[in-house]
Amino acid sequence: MKRTAFFISDGTGITAEALGQSLLAQFEFIEFEKITLPYIDSLEKARKAVARIDKASEIDGNKPVIFDTIVNSEIRAEIRKSQGYMIDIFGTFLEPLEQELGSKSTYTVGKSHSIVSNSSYNRRIDAMNYALENDDGARVRYYNEADIILVGVSRSGKTPTCIYLALQYGIKAANFPLTEDDILDQRLPESLRSYREKIFGLTIDPERLAVIRNERKPNSKYASIKQCNYEVEEVELMYRRERIPYLNSTDYSVEEISTRIMMMTGIERHIR
Amino acid sequence: MKRTAFFISDGTGITAEALGQSLLAQFEFIEFEKITLPYIDSLEKARKAVARIDKASEIDGNKPVIFDTIVNSEIRAEIRKSQGYMIDIFGTFLEPLEQELGSKSTYTVGKSHSIVSNSSYNRRIDAMNYALENDDGARVRYYNEADIILVGVSRSGKTPTCIYLALQYGIKAANFPLTEDDILDQRLPESLRSYREKIFGLTIDPERLAVIRNERKPNSKYASIKQCNYEVEEVELMYRRERIPYLNSTDYSVEEISTRIMMMTGIERHIR
Repeated sequence: MKRTAFFISDGTGITAEALGQSLLAQFEFIEFEKITLPYIDSLEKARKAVARIDKASEIDGNKPVIFDTIVNSEIRAEIRKSQGYMIDIFGTFLEPLEQELGSKSTYTVGKSHSIVSNSSYNRRIDAMNYALENDDGARVRYYNEADIILVGVSRSGKTPTCIYLALQYGIKAANFPLTEDDILDQRLPESLRSYREKIFGLTIDPERLAVIRNERKPNSKYASIKQCNYEVEEVELMYRRERIPYLNSTDYSVEEISTRIMMMTGIERHIR
Repeated sequence: MKRTAFFISDGTGITAEALGQSLLAQFEFIEFEKITLPYIDSLEKARKAVARIDKASEIDGNKPVIFDTIVNSEIRAEIRKSQGYMIDIFGTFLEPLEQELGSKSTYTVGKSHSIVSNSSYNRRIDAMNYALENDDGARVRYYNEADIILVGVSRSGKTPTCIYLALQYGIKAANFPLTEDDILDQRLPESLRSYREKIFGLTIDPERLAVIRNERKPNSKYASIKQCNYEVEEVELMYRRERIPYLNSTDYSVEEISTRIMMMTGIERHIR
């Protein structure tokens, strides 16, 4: 059985997508064709959207599901004329919230994304630039500015995590790769010792590490299970010996690794 | 008037945050203290969360607002014992969706994020690595793999946009900086000509560009308004002359730039 799902917004559509995806993920036996229609901010665009929805309805032989975060009531009324089944995210919650808060809402959806000149947006972009410039142990002289310094063997997930922490939460995260030479004596590398309280370790199952490294350098010593076993074992010994908090990233997405690190270390997000 | 808002989840909390932030942004005259409590997946953690909510309620002198995406009904019942005002995102929409879809949901929230071994997750990480390795014109020999190649003057927003396109949508985006030398003759640089159909231009208001560049290299020729004016003018002439689609990034966030580029070019997201 196939269904089409539409995420419709007068902004980027990111909120409608995030909620819609999470809800649809609860229906694992249904295959959804997912279509995002952002910036539906005029009646003309709404009519075009309706045409797409009705076309999908005809082809599928059942109602498309619509997740929308449009606030303008005229535009929404237009979408409502379609054959789709509408899940009204804002409408459902705004009115009860207005009552509880004793305040009228400004009904300007997408507001939380229109933040170009705002300090929390700049903070995120600064943090992303910081992550890029302090990636892979490129330099340690700006580590005093870091909120956190991720360490771990090559390909254990440091870089994507640093970038996600920056982009989502405005956290300045540097990363430093632990090579075979660094961990020979199971001690924290010299250059990191003065930043001990900011250091967080990543580890990964050696089998998974070997798969990832093989994609990069097939059949190399670097990607061999023997080498991966050795590096991971040494690095974990070092974490324990130096009492560095660490996380095994194997079963987690970048989003999960990032939120777990924040929870374990108590570092604060810098955007709001 | 101050209110506390809690985003509570048995997963990362990202969905609860995204929806909650968007809804709260509609109430611009209320100052919210926002607290995310992720991974609330046991009764014990739920009880601790309740204690935090009740504390906030006492201090604020009014009910904290709770946005939750917890699916386990026992854990949710525990949270419901708090003094908070609960906005039940999943509960509100899952039951009507079950009826419309004629299918029971699996009630496993966070599912859409638990995707480590899944191909769309790998696609996002591959795309991020691609963006990092093909940043700032570092190399053009992998441009055949690109879904899109962003061009623009230094500091016009290319890198953050490439990374966002990768992380959010699994799109492989390379970027190439247009320097003064590249745009002397108002033609597309030689090395880009064979990828013309993948090229998308960014531009930016010269005043804003000067501010951004001044943060980086204060009082340099590079950051002078004269230089910024010149580069932007030349680059826009080139875009028009070469018929390259382009966008002025000045008033947009990275999320908005990314979604607008996708809409203007029709490039497809690679994750679902």
